[in-house]
Amino acid sequence: MRQHHNIPARRGVACTVSRGQFVKLISTHGEQAVDTWAYNASDVSEFMSMEATRTTIQKMRPGVGDVLYTNNRHAILTMVEDTSPGTHDTLIAACDNYRYGLLGCTEYHDNCSDNLAAAMKALGHTITHTPCPLNMFENIPWTLEGDILFEAPESKPGDYVVFRAETDLIIAFSACPQDLMAIHGVDPIPKSADFEVYD
Amino acid sequence: MRQHHNIPARRGVACTVSRGQFVKLISTHGEQAVDTWAYNASDVSEFMSMEATRTTIQKMRPGVGDVLYTNNRHAILTMVEDTSPGTHDTLIAACDNYRYGLLGCTEYHDNCSDNLAAAMKALGHTITHTPCPLNMFENIPWTLEGDILFEAPESKPGDYVVFRAETDLIIAFSACPQDLMAIHGVDPIPKSADFEVYD
Repeated sequence: MRQHHNIPARRGVACTVSRGQFVKLISTHGEQAVDTWAYNASDVSEFMSMEATRTTIQKMRPGVGDVLYTNNRHAILTMVEDTSPGTHDTLIAACDNYRYGLLGCTEYHDNCSDNLAAAMKALGHTITHTPCPLNMFENIPWTLEGDILFEAPESKPGDYVVFRAETDLIIAFSACPQDLMAIHGVDPIPKSADFEVYD
Repeated sequence: MRQHHNIPARRGVACTVSRGQFVKLISTHGEQAVDTWAYNASDVSEFMSMEATRTTIQKMRPGVGDVLYTNNRHAILTMVEDTSPGTHDTLIAACDNYRYGLLGCTEYHDNCSDNLAAAMKALGHTITHTPCPLNMFENIPWTLEGDILFEAPESKPGDYVVFRAETDLIIAFSACPQDLMAIHGVDPIPKSADFEVYD
């Protein structure tokens, strides 16, 4: 069975995935960052951790074949396919209303952190904080001197990444509503994305 | 008034610091990593965030003059002095018992995550998770290709770093008990460190 889900522009969606199932995240329009989280389905205090993943795989970003780990060092997802150039990010915090305040917004701005909380709430879970996301299709290069840059995504329309679930989990995505920085390429308007879950 | 605190080898210590005070962390023996956290003293759900800091300062590691930010994007510490070569780390998770299990331990191993929890508990706070620490004197280089390396610290005995508190906060340190990887230089035995708090 193949379930299809749309991630509306500027919004978040979460759903349960069984161990062994696959999750295919599709960059429907290209050049759209999608913040990604995963939680242990039976205990959401265990979550996919960028710092635990970096420590174990000794890489700044995961690639095909790499396992993503939780804060308890358990395998939660494996990246099994990626048709994009692979420029995903593990360094940058999910955007939140505070961030948009620093960028000059004086009114509420949609943000990935609230999108995560709302998506988890829809499944009955109240989360205590926003883990650092796996920022899919977000192009954040670094230099040897330690500078971090924000650049346009390299993903083309239709590019996709497939993950295998290593445990029963909740996957959560947010189609990033960032429209004040050039992280979404030449067209800064945030767009939707899609994902599928299948055996 | 100047308070002196010892961080025993393999253990953690936390204490409150008032806005405007200084915290001087001393690498007493050199080559000893010290995991560092900070919390808003009036609400420990607000904590120093490596991902929020990297996003705001656009650097992989803070240097003198850089501000460290919380998950709510508020300034919490500023690094005002550093006599070491500055090779601190924001990428690597605090060690925990799970990590030592992956490294082959079959029995409990002292770890920074439990040290943080115990140090916060001693001040009456139960924390919900271990934020990614600021790993002081921990030498974790990266390559342009995205590989992450674990190398010996560059700190010499007596090197120190001074932070200014930007809000009333709790500072927590753990003298890292890692003795299975070469992150503590030629002598792998974990050692103590010291810190001072003063106006």
